[in-house]
Amino acid sequence: MEKNKAIVLVSGGLDSATTLAIARREGYACYALTFLYGQRHRRETDAARRVCESLGAVEQRVVEIDLAAFGGSALTDSRIDVPKDRDSLDRATDIPVTYVPARNTIFLSYALAWAEVLGAFDLFIGVNSTDYSGYPDCRAEFVAAYEAMANLATAAAVEGKGRYRIRAPIIEMTKAQIIRTGTRLGVDYALTHSCYDPDAQGRSCGRCDSCRLRLRGFAEAGLTDPVAYVPPDR
Amino acid sequence: MEKNKAIVLVSGGLDSATTLAIARREGYACYALTFLYGQRHRRETDAARRVCESLGAVEQRVVEIDLAAFGGSALTDSRIDVPKDRDSLDRATDIPVTYVPARNTIFLSYALAWAEVLGAFDLFIGVNSTDYSGYPDCRAEFVAAYEAMANLATAAAVEGKGRYRIRAPIIEMTKAQIIRTGTRLGVDYALTHSCYDPDAQGRSCGRCDSCRLRLRGFAEAGLTDPVAYVPPDR
Repeated sequence: MEKNKAIVLVSGGLDSATTLAIARREGYACYALTFLYGQRHRRETDAARRVCESLGAVEQRVVEIDLAAFGGSALTDSRIDVPKDRDSLDRATDIPVTYVPARNTIFLSYALAWAEVLGAFDLFIGVNSTDYSGYPDCRAEFVAAYEAMANLATAAAVEGKGRYRIRAPIIEMTKAQIIRTGTRLGVDYALTHSCYDPDAQGRSCGRCDSCRLRLRGFAEAGLTDPVAYVPPDR
Repeated sequence: MEKNKAIVLVSGGLDSATTLAIARREGYACYALTFLYGQRHRRETDAARRVCESLGAVEQRVVEIDLAAFGGSALTDSRIDVPKDRDSLDRATDIPVTYVPARNTIFLSYALAWAEVLGAFDLFIGVNSTDYSGYPDCRAEFVAAYEAMANLATAAAVEGKGRYRIRAPIIEMTKAQIIRTGTRLGVDYALTHSCYDPDAQGRSCGRCDSCRLRLRGFAEAGLTDPVAYVPPDR
């Protein structure tokens, strides 16, 4: 019997690698979608390619989108510094400057277009609300609202061919739970990349929100992070 | 007092030109967003530029997006023919091959990103359900669901800075009503372009769904369409 198809958003980070492993474990033929969006570095997309190969994605497409045209984020605008050593690492009351306006909305919209062409109805996204650093588009309310919209937006849904599901399997997990789950499913976290601001050799800074959440997750999981970090200043 | 900002999706067609004129009449400072998306011709985006200039948009951004990468539509895939002289011009029971998967979902997502950066809360889109040729993402249910999602997706909404509104002012109008409204507001329809399949001189075919809806609209409005058409075969 032919496998059901799923679109999986794969960024090259730890969360999306784990999400891809979960989708594959559920038996889907996985079509991976990766975005190049004016990041300061392409290291993350190289990581995405390695992750897709290692976890048996049927196909990976890389779509270049120009989010930097609109600015507004430290991740797409080189004039805004990536913050380091922030006090409020946990569930922030304010949304950090690394937030990219409408990023997941745009990513899911491309995924929806591809899903419709492929005849896929399951869209996997590795958003996480526990360690979410204050991003509004990483919450369950957003995911549910997107799913409702998708089922009114598309020919396949309107014609009754199926119902789209936005799947966010790690949304309620802690970073440690994500790492334990992925490790059990065979994810090689050495292939992933999380740092917002790596050095010229590609070593992670260890101080941005993304590095600190990752390091804390490995520590809580009782595991060692296999990626290379810049040694701390004396 | 500073004007409120609005994002207006401007394609170069008749509907979006009228929508821009309505937004301007309502007093907004209009920021126009146009997409290049693997169309067979760039005539429509040239028309968009002329329309934005003539109707006083504060700024126009043109974003190139690669919808052709996914295929699935006669408007983005050169292997699928644009249908001519279809019987079922009116509210179709089947969705035509000129439907582009998730197009308006993607367009609105970019508009939302720009709105968030600019501090705009009104997004105007010239969708129309009366003459909609069977596109699911031109219906009021879709617009309402998108608005609900947008207000959960963004930092500005979550922080209580404002509530996004997806404005579709011509959604219930007939083509004749749209043309009469635009004419009253000073839209020069000679600057617009609607044809899916113009000839090498840029003349409209007169036979695709888009041309036929346009021509019927002008006829019902008792006006003459100022654009050039290919003469009919003998």
